[in-house]
Amino acid sequence: MDDPRGRLREIGFSEADAATLADHFLDAERRGKHSHGLSRVDWLADLPELDPAARPDLVASEPGYERWDGGGAVGYLTLAAICDAQLADPPATARVVVASRCFPTGVLGYWVRRLADGGLVAALTATSPARLASPDGGPPLAGTNPIAIAVPSSDGRPLVADVSMGRVTHGDVLTGDAAPEELVPFGGDRAHKSFALAVGVQMLVGALAGEGPGAVLVVARPEFDPVPGLRSLATGVRLPGDR
Amino acid sequence: MDDPRGRLREIGFSEADAATLADHFLDAERRGKHSHGLSRVDWLADLPELDPAARPDLVASEPGYERWDGGGAVGYLTLAAICDAQLADPPATARVVVASRCFPTGVLGYWVRRLADGGLVAALTATSPARLASPDGGPPLAGTNPIAIAVPSSDGRPLVADVSMGRVTHGDVLTGDAAPEELVPFGGDRAHKSFALAVGVQMLVGALAGEGPGAVLVVARPEFDPVPGLRSLATGVRLPGDR
Repeated sequence: MDDPRGRLREIGFSEADAATLADHFLDAERRGKHSHGLSRVDWLADLPELDPAARPDLVASEPGYERWDGGGAVGYLTLAAICDAQLADPPATARVVVASRCFPTGVLGYWVRRLADGGLVAALTATSPARLASPDGGPPLAGTNPIAIAVPSSDGRPLVADVSMGRVTHGDVLTGDAAPEELVPFGGDRAHKSFALAVGVQMLVGALAGEGPGAVLVVARPEFDPVPGLRSLATGVRLPGDR
Repeated sequence: MDDPRGRLREIGFSEADAATLADHFLDAERRGKHSHGLSRVDWLADLPELDPAARPDLVASEPGYERWDGGGAVGYLTLAAICDAQLADPPATARVVVASRCFPTGVLGYWVRRLADGGLVAALTATSPARLASPDGGPPLAGTNPIAIAVPSSDGRPLVADVSMGRVTHGDVLTGDAAPEELVPFGGDRAHKSFALAVGVQMLVGALAGEGPGAVLVVARPEFDPVPGLRSLATGVRLPGDR
């Protein structure tokens, strides 16, 4: 695969930020999530408000809580800074991290996997522009609002679940792999369930991070090691996040 | 509807606990969740390890974190005690609450609604015995593991989303309203998504609360008030948790 760092440097990102972004896009390609992969480089370049020099800020910090603001940086870099900060200074037990103005965030599984690789349990959700309407009709009320969970394992293979509430991703629509009308809550005759989760996440993040796309992360030290037991029970069954 | 308090007192619950349980069961009936309603009273009486006098304990408390243990009490009473404690002493900003040995937990939307009625944002998940297998086959690996989110609103009507990962509930199977083989991850051709969330929750709760059913709650003070805006956008569309 082509290394996108040169192109990212041309767009104006620093060498360190270009490396951070490249790692995310290349990992998405390797995991088959092409709509979050290299095609996003030119998409970033075309974002009307792109400011490659902007930096996220830690605006509040207390035991068990942090609040970050994207400060105009792309959401990838905000989540990268948040992950770096959690790994450098893990919570005593658990911490809630709220990020406002945090978009785009890419593959949420990538970020929670980084935290689990560093020994932390993580649950992350993030909002995006409203594209999902109720299965009963009406206007779009929620983004595809994925929920991602990662849990470290003593066998070295964290469990990583990463689920968007859309039947397809907006990226699939951007790349032409799906029609816009396929971007509905997943679940068929149970689509009201994924719609409810998408709306719940939209309001949860909105109540903590304010208007516009944001993210909420819970990060904690594991007290138990349940993943190896699950893997032995699941012999022959692919678990979420495994390749 | 019959008031189940007398029967709950006969089973051995204190007057206060009988009132707590009765309120949960009657609320479930009013919201049409009959499989979590009055039928659960006799079901409770038949639980082989029922100890109506058992009390949950707060076993660890620090800024931003609490750990509770069910101590042999039914999960309803553990979650009731946790909600009471959050409302009596809300977090400075946010708090993660872990409950071990917390089963059965009933309708999670009921608990987060109580917190939102008291002005707090809440996200709650809980595990139950493994009943969901992968859509690809194999043994049951996860409970129906609902995720519930509630967000207070200045209009007095919180947004409450409460979604189980099962196509039907185990309660529906208990009451004969669904066949056991219908208890699969919801989503049809996208059922791997709800399965991934169920497994993610199973490991998240397992890593923080240990073996057996448990619960993880995030509770926070809202900094913004997004629900009225959603309601005005959603004119004519039923929102999650509304009747």
